[in-house]
Amino acid sequence: MTRLHPDVADVSSPADSPAETVADAIESDLLLVEHEFSAFLAARRAEAAGYGDGYVRLWQSVTESARGGKRLRPRLVLTAYHGLNGGGNRSDAVQTALAFELLHTAFLLHDDVIDGDTVRRGRPNVAGEFSADALFRGADEPRARLWGQSAAILAGDLLLHAATQRVARLTTPEPSRSLILDLFERAVFVTAAGELADVGLAAGLSDGRIDDVLAMTEEKTAEYTVAAPLAAGAALARADPELRDLLAGYGRLVGTAFQLGDDLLGVFGEEAVTGKSASSDLRQGKQTSLIAFARGTREWPAIQPLLGHPDLSAAEAAAAGAALERCGARAFVNSLIATHVAAAIATLDSPLVPADLAATLARLAHSCVGRTS
Amino acid sequence: MTRLHPDVADVSSPADSPAETVADAIESDLLLVEHEFSAFLAARRAEAAGYGDGYVRLWQSVTESARGGKRLRPRLVLTAYHGLNGGGNRSDAVQTALAFELLHTAFLLHDDVIDGDTVRRGRPNVAGEFSADALFRGADEPRARLWGQSAAILAGDLLLHAATQRVARLTTPEPSRSLILDLFERAVFVTAAGELADVGLAAGLSDGRIDDVLAMTEEKTAEYTVAAPLAAGAALARADPELRDLLAGYGRLVGTAFQLGDDLLGVFGEEAVTGKSASSDLRQGKQTSLIAFARGTREWPAIQPLLGHPDLSAAEAAAAGAALERCGARAFVNSLIATHVAAAIATLDSPLVPADLAATLARLAHSCVGRTS
Repeated sequence: MTRLHPDVADVSSPADSPAETVADAIESDLLLVEHEFSAFLAARRAEAAGYGDGYVRLWQSVTESARGGKRLRPRLVLTAYHGLNGGGNRSDAVQTALAFELLHTAFLLHDDVIDGDTVRRGRPNVAGEFSADALFRGADEPRARLWGQSAAILAGDLLLHAATQRVARLTTPEPSRSLILDLFERAVFVTAAGELADVGLAAGLSDGRIDDVLAMTEEKTAEYTVAAPLAAGAALARADPELRDLLAGYGRLVGTAFQLGDDLLGVFGEEAVTGKSASSDLRQGKQTSLIAFARGTREWPAIQPLLGHPDLSAAEAAAAGAALERCGARAFVNSLIATHVAAAIATLDSPLVPADLAATLARLAHSCVGRTS
Repeated sequence: MTRLHPDVADVSSPADSPAETVADAIESDLLLVEHEFSAFLAARRAEAAGYGDGYVRLWQSVTESARGGKRLRPRLVLTAYHGLNGGGNRSDAVQTALAFELLHTAFLLHDDVIDGDTVRRGRPNVAGEFSADALFRGADEPRARLWGQSAAILAGDLLLHAATQRVARLTTPEPSRSLILDLFERAVFVTAAGELADVGLAAGLSDGRIDDVLAMTEEKTAEYTVAAPLAAGAALARADPELRDLLAGYGRLVGTAFQLGDDLLGVFGEEAVTGKSASSDLRQGKQTSLIAFARGTREWPAIQPLLGHPDLSAAEAAAAGAALERCGARAFVNSLIATHVAAAIATLDSPLVPADLAATLARLAHSCVGRTS
């Protein structure tokens, strides 16, 4: 039966429309991801009302922390899924996309606790909001910090659980369903390894050579940000295992390049654009690619004393940035990004990758160069 | 076909043997839970080797922290499952039992971070072990604490995810499968609410009236410890929804009684038996049922100044205990336990509950009275 008046609001099966392009399908599904995310948070805020004001505020704060993300991971799931001609169960692609965003938000929440950060995306994060509230209500500083940290740990737990619940409830038939669970399991396992390595480096318990920093970067960021979302989208589109692995390999390279760009923004970025303090990496003594390079240069004695000081001034941060520029660290990291991007694009040169998808992913890889936010 | 020589080592389907009692089946499945738990941890330790020494040590430390538990939650899943004549998918009952133990271990890890505890079950916990290691390797105190806390947050995340993965991979048909996911989701949601309320009470941000403390106790402990495991076992045995709800109701009462017993042990327990410092509740200023009662008595001025001091001496802890005894708080909590136990046993008086299961659960309820560990 021909539908003469296709209903624009009927987004549940737009793939039925032959006129829908891949790009349209991705954008339309990203709206569904937003809608599902909002509906989930609204339901939780409502349920929390039965458990006291604090719990309602926790879910309100989680709602805030979910705002303003780039939704990069959902976009990648959907890019692979639709770029490989989707089919199968499209609503499962939306659910998987949301699962990765929930996972990302959970990781951010716990990463902030680990780093002692109270600001994220230019706003107080869950820990920051709860600490401020406790101080306002007369708690002393240690108790307020504890309250903030506890709230953020619990918020992360709730979103991590919600992410896995989404994947658990997929209805796509085997082996896709188990594959997505495997990819998710691996992403959590590898990300935790990278996060632990990051803390160990920052605490001065490991060396911080450039190889260690690159391995940590790939583990902490690239796996769950790019490799796993692309592989999951491919699994849902029932792609060949070889193609799935190829996309994951591309993802590790691009994800690493993306994070190396973050290392640059963490020192040279505009706070007003990035929404993140341009001195926080230095204050926390993060062992980034910049620092790993600088360690072997003559500027190191000027840089080292400035690292890891919680009360680093803006002038000191600027001085450290200038030294990192002079010693060639900035140029080195830019060249690392270029190498990774080139290697990523080279992996796409395979008859397995449809031309349109290859073009989209090549554009994505290039966007890692010269980031400003 | 009659099996003349049933193979004792074939534990995958012992329910086929008509000679196996319910008690045998539970004990046999608890061994399988132990075996699966060990195999999971061994696999993770082996995989971690690809991600550096720190990650291997994290999984070793998680393995340690999993030892010595009472395995109460797995036992309850299996008690309900076999007590309701099991059937269905027995290996799913084992997986669900393990999932609750993984969840419990994850909650303990994060609870310890929130409480700042570095000892659990008489041994250094993950945070304690990692902090000590960092100090040994020359880190200063704040960095060592950060390293310990970060390791424990990540360990909890990994086990929380592993718990949900187990449930996600159940093969029991619908609606049981979704029911177990629902029960798990609710358990995490309610437990987080209770944990947040607990921190709020300890931080002095809430009143700490006895009703608040009882609600917090039910949320933080009873739901995931007793109510959800029993309901999950019943769901796997395809029990009536009414019976499932009855068991969950029983579970909330018994779980609360169990935690009230913990409140008593936290002040009056023998450290050598409980494996937990008998002054930590006081040092942390926990708003337990004892404290909520004492607040309205004439002993309060003697007790209040002793609460929440990190360096409380053994003599001061003993003085606080004596005052809690004198003011009637200990007797009051004992009477609360008795009331909860009686109410729990009353719920079992239903034709829906098989007599043997009712007897087992009545014994369990009685065991909450007069606990020493």
